[in-house]
Amino acid sequence: MQKALALAAKGRGRTSPNPMAGAVIVKGNKIIAADYHRRAGAPHAEVLALKKAGAKAKGATLYINLEPCCHRKKKTPPCTKSIIKSGLKKIVIAMQDPNPQVNGNGIKELMSAGIEVETGIMQEEAKKLNEAFTKFIIKKEPFVILKIAQSIDGKIATSGGESKWITGEDARRYVHKLRSETDAVLVGIGTIKKDNPSLTCRIKGGRNPYRVVVDSSLQIPLDAKVLRHKDNKTIIAAIPNSEFRNPKLQKDYHKKINKLKNLGVQVLIVKDKNGKVDLNALMKKLGELNITSLMIEGGSSINASAISSRIVDKIVVFIAPQIIGGADAVSSIGGKSPRLLKNALRIKNLQIKKIGEDYLLEGYL
Amino acid sequence: MQKALALAAKGRGRTSPNPMAGAVIVKGNKIIAADYHRRAGAPHAEVLALKKAGAKAKGATLYINLEPCCHRKKKTPPCTKSIIKSGLKKIVIAMQDPNPQVNGNGIKELMSAGIEVETGIMQEEAKKLNEAFTKFIIKKEPFVILKIAQSIDGKIATSGGESKWITGEDARRYVHKLRSETDAVLVGIGTIKKDNPSLTCRIKGGRNPYRVVVDSSLQIPLDAKVLRHKDNKTIIAAIPNSEFRNPKLQKDYHKKINKLKNLGVQVLIVKDKNGKVDLNALMKKLGELNITSLMIEGGSSINASAISSRIVDKIVVFIAPQIIGGADAVSSIGGKSPRLLKNALRIKNLQIKKIGEDYLLEGYL
Repeated sequence: MQKALALAAKGRGRTSPNPMAGAVIVKGNKIIAADYHRRAGAPHAEVLALKKAGAKAKGATLYINLEPCCHRKKKTPPCTKSIIKSGLKKIVIAMQDPNPQVNGNGIKELMSAGIEVETGIMQEEAKKLNEAFTKFIIKKEPFVILKIAQSIDGKIATSGGESKWITGEDARRYVHKLRSETDAVLVGIGTIKKDNPSLTCRIKGGRNPYRVVVDSSLQIPLDAKVLRHKDNKTIIAAIPNSEFRNPKLQKDYHKKINKLKNLGVQVLIVKDKNGKVDLNALMKKLGELNITSLMIEGGSSINASAISSRIVDKIVVFIAPQIIGGADAVSSIGGKSPRLLKNALRIKNLQIKKIGEDYLLEGYL
Repeated sequence: MQKALALAAKGRGRTSPNPMAGAVIVKGNKIIAADYHRRAGAPHAEVLALKKAGAKAKGATLYINLEPCCHRKKKTPPCTKSIIKSGLKKIVIAMQDPNPQVNGNGIKELMSAGIEVETGIMQEEAKKLNEAFTKFIIKKEPFVILKIAQSIDGKIATSGGESKWITGEDARRYVHKLRSETDAVLVGIGTIKKDNPSLTCRIKGGRNPYRVVVDSSLQIPLDAKVLRHKDNKTIIAAIPNSEFRNPKLQKDYHKKINKLKNLGVQVLIVKDKNGKVDLNALMKKLGELNITSLMIEGGSSINASAISSRIVDKIVVFIAPQIIGGADAVSSIGGKSPRLLKNALRIKNLQIKKIGEDYLLEGYL
């Protein structure tokens, strides 16, 4: 199962909106075939492995991190059929497929066909691997990661606004790896104006995520770096122009939308929430675009909105070995604090690791 | 040496202003005697161990974490004499005594007497153990620890001022252990007014530290809990009354000092720095009182003053698994932020450990 999980992880960042899956076929204590799901549309892991095993699959055991699919609403035939046909004796599954169309039905089908099924082996690791897929397939919204790079005392910039670089090179490289593994990154217009980032993945072999800019009133400069990509993967989220009472502003707004569209940018008009983009509504729209995971790389203000909108599933906080200090420095989470401590946000399963000179805290909401 | 260090650590919090020391005497691969320095005024570790070993010490090897003393400015005779008399063949020393009166002279004396000397074994561990003593004996000022208990996002209280409790029970117990090991704790008058803490050590067998309150204009209420102790270990640091132009205020100030003295409180009048107590001058005064280590348990403002006065040697930051959020919540370090990131404070040798549900970051300035 360990090998199946490791193989599955090789597809990270490529299989979306599908889950990552790895399959290992064992016969007489020997691995006779193994493979993994490479990308959406490509064959599933178990089908690839069974093909490799050929006739030898008869009487063998298949290890797979995710319950084989049994539904037909997709480009590839259901895997349960191939498994039954192969003559496998036993299948060991780490976790059920959370997809409501599967969710135990694949297992049932296999058992009815007389195949021995064992489940729950390395379940925790398997669930973590496909945490984004799991949320997406159930809620039809992306799994949201809030990424912060801060000093020990929780500051992401000095009073002068300087933030480059609080964390070290290794941490920054790690962020590019995360970008490569996440369907989309999201920033606020404040970050575009201040840093003018490209939001690309700058590691070898990495792939660029969608770039989502929350920009209620379409203030983005047309020469912003994020608009220069030719991959049609930039999305601007704004509020309806009916929010602008002034007819002149409404007209400008329309013109701006057209200009952005001409640059290959997708403009999403999202429900208004106190003059801002409603992040919950935005998540629904991004889900409709099959964006299964999203990393927020915003400033103090967008971080606070994300937290208070309760869209965040996971936090990824880099802590650099420095103290910036100052009530006037920029806090990682802006906005308004709760009056009472009991209303603070509890973080579950907080884990820590060292990345170069920095520490990385990861936890769930 | 490991055993010598472990023995030495048993004296933690009791030996001040002396260093912690442990001694192990080995003969033919067997420990024949071992002991440690219990408290200032009591016999030194090597003397105790040699006494236990008696005539067997002849030809044996002594392991000790700190160079034996050779000076006479103290209550006990120099240890070098006892060692030479004992007939020890060899002595293994983790670190030189940083005391300018020793600092290699003890080693020289032993070598001149024909005793084999090996140094530097587990030096790093030995230096860490006596880091407070080392600073004190060289600079005649306490080793200063800044203790912070914060949320992941660097907040020590909500906008409503609530701070009890951000960290869990284990972390809070750990702070009481630190109090027991530190000569003094320091808070600002703000903390006294807001929380009215006792600042005692509430673990079994622990000992209470000195309590230092930075209270420039003597605003402390006479019924503050910190004034109720009967151990004469409360110190108030204020600025000279000449700073108060108003004769009425000057008179009140004098009256307050007398009232505090009647409560057994030591009032230190310390140089003024912009209407506040000059923390550098205060550290000198505390050093004169043989306070070798001090833990700052203050609020946002005293933490900022300590950082900007550059009195802090070590930070001890508890990070609780929660996000408070809000630009209006209380940051762990208040005051003013540097404009430029290069002027942020670098923390050296940042280490992390888990304490119950919280993480503890420790590092040096």
